[in-house]
Amino acid sequence: MRKEHDFLGELEVPDDAYYGVQTLRAKENFQITGQTIDRDLVQAMAAVKKAAALANMETGRLTPRIGEALVRAADEILAGKLLDQFPLDPIQGGAGTSVNMNMNEVLSNRALELLGEPRGRYDIVSPNNHANMAQSTNDVFPTAIKVCLSRKAARLRAALDRLAAELERKSEAYKDILKMGRTHLQDAVPITLGQEMGAYASAVRRGVRRIERAQESLHVVNMGGTAIGTGLNAEPAYIPLVSEKLSEVTGERYVTAENLIDATNNTDVFAEMSGALKATALVLIKMANDFRLMASGPRCGLSELKLPKRQPGSSIMPGKVNPVIAEVLDQACYQAIAHDLAVTLGVENGQFELNVMEPVIAHNLFGALNCLTNGINTFVDKLLVDLEADEASCKAWLDRSVGVVTALLPHIGYEQSAALAKEAYTTGKPIRQVIMERHLLEKERMERILSPRAMTTPGIAE
Amino acid sequence: MRKEHDFLGELEVPDDAYYGVQTLRAKENFQITGQTIDRDLVQAMAAVKKAAALANMETGRLTPRIGEALVRAADEILAGKLLDQFPLDPIQGGAGTSVNMNMNEVLSNRALELLGEPRGRYDIVSPNNHANMAQSTNDVFPTAIKVCLSRKAARLRAALDRLAAELERKSEAYKDILKMGRTHLQDAVPITLGQEMGAYASAVRRGVRRIERAQESLHVVNMGGTAIGTGLNAEPAYIPLVSEKLSEVTGERYVTAENLIDATNNTDVFAEMSGALKATALVLIKMANDFRLMASGPRCGLSELKLPKRQPGSSIMPGKVNPVIAEVLDQACYQAIAHDLAVTLGVENGQFELNVMEPVIAHNLFGALNCLTNGINTFVDKLLVDLEADEASCKAWLDRSVGVVTALLPHIGYEQSAALAKEAYTTGKPIRQVIMERHLLEKERMERILSPRAMTTPGIAE
Amino acid sequence: MRKEHDFLGELEVPDDAYYGVQTLRAKENFQITGQTIDRDLVQAMAAVKKAAALANMETGRLTPRIGEALVRAADEILAGKLLDQFPLDPIQGGAGTSVNMNMNEVLSNRALELLGEPRGRYDIVSPNNHANMAQSTNDVFPTAIKVCLSRKAARLRAALDRLAAELERKSEAYKDILKMGRTHLQDAVPITLGQEMGAYASAVRRGVRRIERAQESLHVVNMGGTAIGTGLNAEPAYIPLVSEKLSEVTGERYVTAENLIDATNNTDVFAEMSGALKATALVLIKMANDFRLMASGPRCGLSELKLPKRQPGSSIMPGKVNPVIAEVLDQACYQAIAHDLAVTLGVENGQFELNVMEPVIAHNLFGALNCLTNGINTFVDKLLVDLEADEASCKAWLDRSVGVVTALLPHIGYEQSAALAKEAYTTGKPIRQVIMERHLLEKERMERILSPRAMTTPGIAE
Amino acid sequence: MRKEHDFLGELEVPDDAYYGVQTLRAKENFQITGQTIDRDLVQAMAAVKKAAALANMETGRLTPRIGEALVRAADEILAGKLLDQFPLDPIQGGAGTSVNMNMNEVLSNRALELLGEPRGRYDIVSPNNHANMAQSTNDVFPTAIKVCLSRKAARLRAALDRLAAELERKSEAYKDILKMGRTHLQDAVPITLGQEMGAYASAVRRGVRRIERAQESLHVVNMGGTAIGTGLNAEPAYIPLVSEKLSEVTGERYVTAENLIDATNNTDVFAEMSGALKATALVLIKMANDFRLMASGPRCGLSELKLPKRQPGSSIMPGKVNPVIAEVLDQACYQAIAHDLAVTLGVENGQFELNVMEPVIAHNLFGALNCLTNGINTFVDKLLVDLEADEASCKAWLDRSVGVVTALLPHIGYEQSAALAKEAYTTGKPIRQVIMERHLLEKERMERILSPRAMTTPGIAE
Repeated sequence: MRKEHDFLGELEVPDDAYYGVQTLRAKENFQITGQTIDRDLVQAMAAVKKAAALANMETGRLTPRIGEALVRAADEILAGKLLDQFPLDPIQGGAGTSVNMNMNEVLSNRALELLGEPRGRYDIVSPNNHANMAQSTNDVFPTAIKVCLSRKAARLRAALDRLAAELERKSEAYKDILKMGRTHLQDAVPITLGQEMGAYASAVRRGVRRIERAQESLHVVNMGGTAIGTGLNAEPAYIPLVSEKLSEVTGERYVTAENLIDATNNTDVFAEMSGALKATALVLIKMANDFRLMASGPRCGLSELKLPKRQPGSSIMPGKVNPVIAEVLDQACYQAIAHDLAVTLGVENGQFELNVMEPVIAHNLFGALNCLTNGINTFVDKLLVDLEADEASCKAWLDRSVGVVTALLPHIGYEQSAALAKEAYTTGKPIRQVIMERHLLEKERMERILSPRAMTTPGIAE
Repeated sequence: MRKEHDFLGELEVPDDAYYGVQTLRAKENFQITGQTIDRDLVQAMAAVKKAAALANMETGRLTPRIGEALVRAADEILAGKLLDQFPLDPIQGGAGTSVNMNMNEVLSNRALELLGEPRGRYDIVSPNNHANMAQSTNDVFPTAIKVCLSRKAARLRAALDRLAAELERKSEAYKDILKMGRTHLQDAVPITLGQEMGAYASAVRRGVRRIERAQESLHVVNMGGTAIGTGLNAEPAYIPLVSEKLSEVTGERYVTAENLIDATNNTDVFAEMSGALKATALVLIKMANDFRLMASGPRCGLSELKLPKRQPGSSIMPGKVNPVIAEVLDQACYQAIAHDLAVTLGVENGQFELNVMEPVIAHNLFGALNCLTNGINTFVDKLLVDLEADEASCKAWLDRSVGVVTALLPHIGYEQSAALAKEAYTTGKPIRQVIMERHLLEKERMERILSPRAMTTPGIAE
Repeated sequence: MRKEHDFLGELEVPDDAYYGVQTLRAKENFQITGQTIDRDLVQAMAAVKKAAALANMETGRLTPRIGEALVRAADEILAGKLLDQFPLDPIQGGAGTSVNMNMNEVLSNRALELLGEPRGRYDIVSPNNHANMAQSTNDVFPTAIKVCLSRKAARLRAALDRLAAELERKSEAYKDILKMGRTHLQDAVPITLGQEMGAYASAVRRGVRRIERAQESLHVVNMGGTAIGTGLNAEPAYIPLVSEKLSEVTGERYVTAENLIDATNNTDVFAEMSGALKATALVLIKMANDFRLMASGPRCGLSELKLPKRQPGSSIMPGKVNPVIAEVLDQACYQAIAHDLAVTLGVENGQFELNVMEPVIAHNLFGALNCLTNGINTFVDKLLVDLEADEASCKAWLDRSVGVVTALLPHIGYEQSAALAKEAYTTGKPIRQVIMERHLLEKERMERILSPRAMTTPGIAE
Repeated sequence: MRKEHDFLGELEVPDDAYYGVQTLRAKENFQITGQTIDRDLVQAMAAVKKAAALANMETGRLTPRIGEALVRAADEILAGKLLDQFPLDPIQGGAGTSVNMNMNEVLSNRALELLGEPRGRYDIVSPNNHANMAQSTNDVFPTAIKVCLSRKAARLRAALDRLAAELERKSEAYKDILKMGRTHLQDAVPITLGQEMGAYASAVRRGVRRIERAQESLHVVNMGGTAIGTGLNAEPAYIPLVSEKLSEVTGERYVTAENLIDATNNTDVFAEMSGALKATALVLIKMANDFRLMASGPRCGLSELKLPKRQPGSSIMPGKVNPVIAEVLDQACYQAIAHDLAVTLGVENGQFELNVMEPVIAHNLFGALNCLTNGINTFVDKLLVDLEADEASCKAWLDRSVGVVTALLPHIGYEQSAALAKEAYTTGKPIRQVIMERHLLEKERMERILSPRAMTTPGIAE
């Protein structure tokens, strides 16, 4: 054990730990979820720290010897090392100060080691003076959250892209499968299964763009704002430089906020991203539920889709198979929507120069992104690629339907059409028969009007 | 116009108004929803004021002349008069002070009139000194909210009772209609439509009890706590007395909180009631959605229920009829659940000796109660009483089903049963035929095991 | 009374009513909120109907005689007439069919009147065949919601603009008022009151842009999709034309969705707008709460701001004045956030070719927009324009503070700075005195480092 | 590796695994959160299985040899063994079937081992026929959730009890510390710090009772309902017996639902518990926020409380210490409230005979209970026990205040009192001086009226 102190006193730190006294205090203080902070956040924080060190070296304030050691240490974390040195609970007080100090301590101790010095020699490389130079938790932490979110959002967009692409393949494959369209869960007019799949794909692609737009808001960072956004202790030259360096380190373009105080005080961009996730989750729920309904059966439901059988569905009912993959996507989406409420409550509760609820905001955004990404990939891999349509069942429903009567509207008007429908419903006769019996249209013309193509594309057949 | 003043200055009040200067200010200040405060709240407030005046007369602090005039004025409001004298927006700052002063002004001016004095002579009957004697908005307003909620909750319970009773009637009527039970939207094992209706009724009755319990928490009031719960300016004798009087006035038993400060500072009992409403709304949504699914069709859905036709369903699709009443119940429930979030945010934001967000809390609780009560009564009157079962359709589904194989489990085990199910699904054969072909059971025994009664009640048929 | 019928039967309609049988049925069926549909929605619907009639005349399907009468009728509604002919409850089943038919009936009857025909002669001008030509509720209603939202969103943006402009004025006015910055509600480092106001303004302006972006998504409409988005009964030429006409009628650019089926089935764009409103509400809550904290006092709080006195604050505490306007803005924002949950639940519950929960979605979006717009305008007019800073109080706090020690960090390091702070806190001495006593810096240099300008702008003073 | 099969085919299971083929499938299918199911749930499930085995032996359906082996296996899990055999993700499709089968497999394989048989010999001890005898996931899983919730709720109540007890100690300790009461964040009338602590304690105790009541609803279970609540394959004698056995195994009294179908279909009791947690979280947030406000400073805030210093508060601001423990309690509560929304969405989405969203419901209830329990214990241990009052600061505020003027109301009326307040505010004079100067009361009487005791207890001093 080595001894370390901060202004509250001294503690013993395990000799092999790269973290130090402040991490220890935080580990003791915060035991809420039983989880540890997201690995992506650790790496995002390392990226931010690397950018700051590079900028500080370029302004000349940080000596190359120390600066380069810090950069090497950060690079190691970016390469996946030292990740076990970040043991803190994601829900914590202090607005991320503990995460920032954890990173400052690990970087400093690893830098010391790289310089041939023993860990804990903060007089040589200091967590506060060097690793945190020209920085405050209040600019570093929200920036790292943004870098982390951007990384996770890219994964989500990739998952949504895969989903849309697979739906589009199904749209093409099912383009000739005519089926009953339903509104209010009641028979409406015909549509093709391909059109339905295409509509899901189209909505999913809108989700991609929506998340892209929300991501843009996250590329505006408050680095250089330091403690409260006024830039105290940050040199003017450093401020634009650190965003440049961050862009280089991450390969994404980050820009400095025009109003650093606003960007430090307000966290509404996180609510914005969360709202984009929620809107997208809602699209997915609707799709998953439609799949569950279309796959209902096998004997006593709609049976329009056959989902791949992933596991026995019941401990008591032999032979039963359930749409478990669609169900799990639904639940992943509920989880994401619930995370949005935690984000909302967090963002609601800022005061004055800071929102101290950033840890719970970040934790929930990360949770939502992970849940959605995993839920979507599961849906694609375990359900969608092996999906089959039950064409016979689609056809059987359609053949029984009366709703096609709508296509007669431009020809015989609403009232007469309604009378036809009523007769069909009352007598149980097929609608074509009713039309013929009433001599309202010649057979050929009726068939043109009621042809699959006429029924499922714009226009009034003659 | 007459002139009135408060410590901020003088304003002109319309001569025919019973309200006064403070109401005018508040009317000007708060224009958010375009609505006015709930009539039930006005009457609840009048009940509270009457109780206070009676208690103050009994302790001897209020002269009978003034006290009785105030009581008569309050009685008029309780009888439905003067309700147009309360023009304020339900969402307002000031934690209800404006509503309280509105009431104090109306009572004082009406009392003055009853005493033969001109309105505005607050030196004779004073809104603050007499109508508000031994009171503060901070005890009067939350108490009035509780009285109002209790009244509305009684209406909701009555609606739920009607719903449960009607469901029970349907349960009896449909007790012999066998149908397919479904889990995961997949065929499970048989049930009767009557059992399903009985289960809805049972859940609804649990909702009644849940609201009853939440109502009990609302019968604990902080009258006598005055400004911050310490009871400043309230005589010890008055405190228990005012709860007694309130019980007499309302016909419900109200008791004084043991800790008046807690009862003044904290508003969690409102969140509790809101939570009870939400849980009940969720029961109703599930029921309404089941009805929508069972009524799906008429040709391309489950068609197990026939809902009464309330209106044409489409401007373009002739003959279409939709389950609009079930849909509106769903939406009333969503609205109630959304109201719960406003209540949550309001309750969250108390500070120190008061929660100033009580107006938004009350407005949303009232909204939730009204929506649910109206939604339920609509469902009963416009849908449930005229509901019909489609027995033929229920039977047709069941005859096709394989799920009955579950009943064989105790006799031939899970694996063999699963094999039977698989064969039935693969070959399309009726399950009874498959069983017979495999010579697993004698026909009679099979029929005993698969009989409707055996399938839908506990036990293992032999 | 006149008699009208639909395919469910005949009803008596008041002679002076422009609406007809279907409106009557809906009025009877839906009694949930006690409110009637938003006037803006009625006018938006009229705009959509006018656009459709113009497009139908241009394709030649609608005769000019009937078409022009319908357009004139729509113009009257757009001019504010006939608004009392729309008596329906905003929460309704049927996905807006009743609102659409209400409009179709009013337009048809008014058109009949203009043509010199009696109301109810639907054989001449038909609600379904003419007013609703090439339309379905399922394209008309969501489009009208979008037109209505866009109009309301423009008002909200105007309110936000006013707020931002007024905050910017305050930012300029208070640019030299130095005060303590606070993070975690704990003393941090100095800032100017002007900087704080500027940060609020900056965040509000981001809200404007966010709503603008969400509005763009609302300009994509599904007119021409008819019943389920397939365009059945809509001529190909009509589809782009109706968007053009709608753009002309409204003065805003509306475009036809690329995938009409998606645009008919999915309602996520409403959740997107709602999310934008929520994020903006959160910014406003933070600002309003800061105002409440800064105005806390008058004797026992921070007293950094003096809010205009709008009304007496208490029925029992003489002389008390409360920040009622900031409180009402908070509550308007809670209401908006609650509305978002109803939108979420509505959007969640679409099935197949339609989301029948559009009425509750629309009702809540309208409510949120109205609440926010009114809350903001109230805040500007009743509080912000008359706001005053308590400069003396700001200065008094700052003079006592120790937090300025942060500016020494680049000069003497974190540890020594912390020691200074500790001594100041322990002894109660002013921080400048502690610095001088330790001979760490010369007086002049210290004053440069601790000067207001150095403390509140980027850089390291020497 | 050993081979196992189910009706979907054969898989290789690791030889040392106690779980089997169905667990493997589920592990592959569900990868959403990266977490595994809660250990408490595993043990609750073991308790349920033990109860079922005991009941099945008592009815004679299960042979003692197999039954006792299953009971021994369950006992091992209850003793904390085999917990690593439950690797499934808490968010999963299938409504808990995978958790149930995981348990059935582990119990069967361990029972086989105890009987000297090799794992996988399901022909001897079968997961479906023996471990799951007379059971279905649809009764076992919700029952296990309830048992688990009850256990966690007991821990939460213990934490709340500790919190209330510690607050009561503080209430006693601070009973003579007079301070300014505040409403609307504005000076109101005096109170003691002890009264405030007592009010928090009182509210917390109400939370205990509220959770207790919600727990009662969880003690009604649907064991014996099997697949859909009809009791198919469960002998009548078994049904009451299994609840008895469960009561013995858990030491808590569980009763069989009167309507097993309702209890199987509906999950509103989970929403009820969640609502109770939310209401309690709101009480805690209010308290934590009051602590944060009262501890604001140290130089530029209220400084009425001194929180123990748990860690340095800033990476850049030397000497800063933040109320991190109160902040983390706030965030734990936000998390709990967010969990409630997931529960709401889950409960909303049941259909027909089952709510398949139980996994996400359970996961979020467990999360909420854990978060709250940990957050409260942290608050007690790390903050409350070491809390100190800043008596001098409380007194200093109070001495400056004008709000005491309220106590004069019964003596000189509202208007005169308001005039006194106005003069004090305008001139800056102490309120006592203003009263004396106006000769409104004799000094001694004034002091009696304004004495601490008179100001903070009911009554009108003379």
